[in-house]
Amino acid sequence: MDGFADQAQGFQLDDALNQKWCVARRPDGNVRSEDFALDSEPIPELNPGEVLLKTLYLSLAPVMRGYMSGQSFAGETPLAIGDVIHGRGVAQIAKSRHPEWAEGQVVQGQLGWQTHKVSRMTRAEKFRTMPLNGLPASHGLGALGMTGLSAWAGFNTVGAPRDKDIVLVSGAVGGVGSLVIQMAANVLGCHTVGIAGGAEKCARAANLGCADTIDYRSEDMSAALAAALPEGLDLYFDNVGGPILDTALDHLRLRARIVLCGSISEYTLTEPYRLPDYTRLRRTDAQMRGFFVYNHLEDWDRAMDEMADWIRSGLVQPVEQITDGFEHMPAALAGLYTGQNMGKQLCRVRGEPEAWT
Amino acid sequence: MDGFADQAQGFQLDDALNQKWCVARRPDGNVRSEDFALDSEPIPELNPGEVLLKTLYLSLAPVMRGYMSGQSFAGETPLAIGDVIHGRGVAQIAKSRHPEWAEGQVVQGQLGWQTHKVSRMTRAEKFRTMPLNGLPASHGLGALGMTGLSAWAGFNTVGAPRDKDIVLVSGAVGGVGSLVIQMAANVLGCHTVGIAGGAEKCARAANLGCADTIDYRSEDMSAALAAALPEGLDLYFDNVGGPILDTALDHLRLRARIVLCGSISEYTLTEPYRLPDYTRLRRTDAQMRGFFVYNHLEDWDRAMDEMADWIRSGLVQPVEQITDGFEHMPAALAGLYTGQNMGKQLCRVRGEPEAWT
Repeated sequence: MDGFADQAQGFQLDDALNQKWCVARRPDGNVRSEDFALDSEPIPELNPGEVLLKTLYLSLAPVMRGYMSGQSFAGETPLAIGDVIHGRGVAQIAKSRHPEWAEGQVVQGQLGWQTHKVSRMTRAEKFRTMPLNGLPASHGLGALGMTGLSAWAGFNTVGAPRDKDIVLVSGAVGGVGSLVIQMAANVLGCHTVGIAGGAEKCARAANLGCADTIDYRSEDMSAALAAALPEGLDLYFDNVGGPILDTALDHLRLRARIVLCGSISEYTLTEPYRLPDYTRLRRTDAQMRGFFVYNHLEDWDRAMDEMADWIRSGLVQPVEQITDGFEHMPAALAGLYTGQNMGKQLCRVRGEPEAWT
Repeated sequence: MDGFADQAQGFQLDDALNQKWCVARRPDGNVRSEDFALDSEPIPELNPGEVLLKTLYLSLAPVMRGYMSGQSFAGETPLAIGDVIHGRGVAQIAKSRHPEWAEGQVVQGQLGWQTHKVSRMTRAEKFRTMPLNGLPASHGLGALGMTGLSAWAGFNTVGAPRDKDIVLVSGAVGGVGSLVIQMAANVLGCHTVGIAGGAEKCARAANLGCADTIDYRSEDMSAALAAALPEGLDLYFDNVGGPILDTALDHLRLRARIVLCGSISEYTLTEPYRLPDYTRLRRTDAQMRGFFVYNHLEDWDRAMDEMADWIRSGLVQPVEQITDGFEHMPAALAGLYTGQNMGKQLCRVRGEPEAWT
């Protein structure tokens, strides 16, 4: 039995306790079981202005290794050893002594890796209500959450797609990528080429709308891009960085845009990746465009409304891979960096909300 | 006496001959005298449809080492050993048997490193008339030529400066850079910081309008940028690439733009420069924007009109460094890569045109 399974063994969800995963050690390379500590504490009585949140789902995201390493993003407090790991979640309000939040409401925001949270619902925690309208609450961590906003703003605002653009997307069945290929292919009707690892993922990308797919594990990227993009690309939505970005720079059409969304291939490198010959952007007036989802919060309502409409009409299918059980959070996080997963990764702690009357 | 001086010795301009500098050898690192061969040939009689051009000025530009190495840019024929080196020039039409071009006209375009050219004035040679309107013909290789268009389009179109932008320019007293700092500081009124090598160049940059200057030879770039840009930068117009670009990436404000115009610091590297951590573009939605002046030819008339107006009104002063004598072209080219020069580098072959009646 591996270290992750040992740690998870015998765990039971206990409504009288807040159970939580904390940083035990700074990760070195990919996360290992020794980097995590499972802890618990009694749930206190609420003070005025506080709510008690019961965790329904927790997000799993590559950035979490950065948090565990002490890095800070988007104004999150840098984590010390022993702190609860940062992470977004969907929760239901179990009790409220807060004038603006009611029992039974489903919310998404900064919960942390824990089964309950006593919160004053401060601005820093970024809680928002989730109008479900018949859609599952789990989407709040994917298409109808920050992942969805990343895809929407990165593609539409930063990528600024034009009619008939040829679009390339790496991480094509990842949390963000799977939404981007569907917006490109199904909403805008662009010729869309997806890059993914393995035959199963490529088949899924094709099924979601990609006209062509490239398996970066078995194909020579340079030859495969030349074959799939004989006229080059107008928009590369990059979720992986590293050598695939390097190769994409050889296929830029006039005024091509590269949206720098993620660089999962670089996250566990000890030295930052060094990009060869960025001057390839020059010949075709091409642009590399960074973006950070927290710079795009003003688009939240529009993005969520559009995404919910596309989901209902079938143009966009959320792809989610759900790990069952709070105790398996560490193993699921470790799996993120090895490319074994499709769609938004999340953990079902309690699952869909109870009807509240 | 060095090799360049040996080669130049005893040269006389001869109106009966076409004298020309040819590629003798592919450069390895910076150009050396052995890479050039001086040759000459009789000037033939003109056929119908041909003109005889007499060279007035020739341009010196970093790209020329690339031509000598057999690289091709902007549709120029790759050079073989023995070919006349590519280069733009300003010439006067000495004889014409072409219906659309008249004796006495001053033109700029692809002349090559030679004292005469017999031309059919094809599209590929990119000749344009130069309406001087009292301005010197030498400007046709600088502010009123492709250098001026590079500065104009790179700054205005690609850089898309906004009101009150904080602008950083490297190569601040180079051919393009000296025009960009003046457009930024004097035309738009932006707070403009110039980077140049040595006290003399920094003084010139300040004199041309920079609010602050950084001497990359004597200052620690990281500390100097932090001091000069306490709030960061909105627009970095990059003429040098390499480690200065790397450092600039630490000072990006929200939606900062980096215009990739030149990378003189990288031209003589044997391996392309590898940019560390391009992902620094993300946090502030910053963009690296490549551009190639030949993608902007449609702006020629507007750019030249504006530039001529700014020169006449004194908002922009063209900075030119003129080497006297066709025989000194190779040594002047070698000097480009060692950072010893200010403004547009050119060679006076015959100088200002004769009045033609």
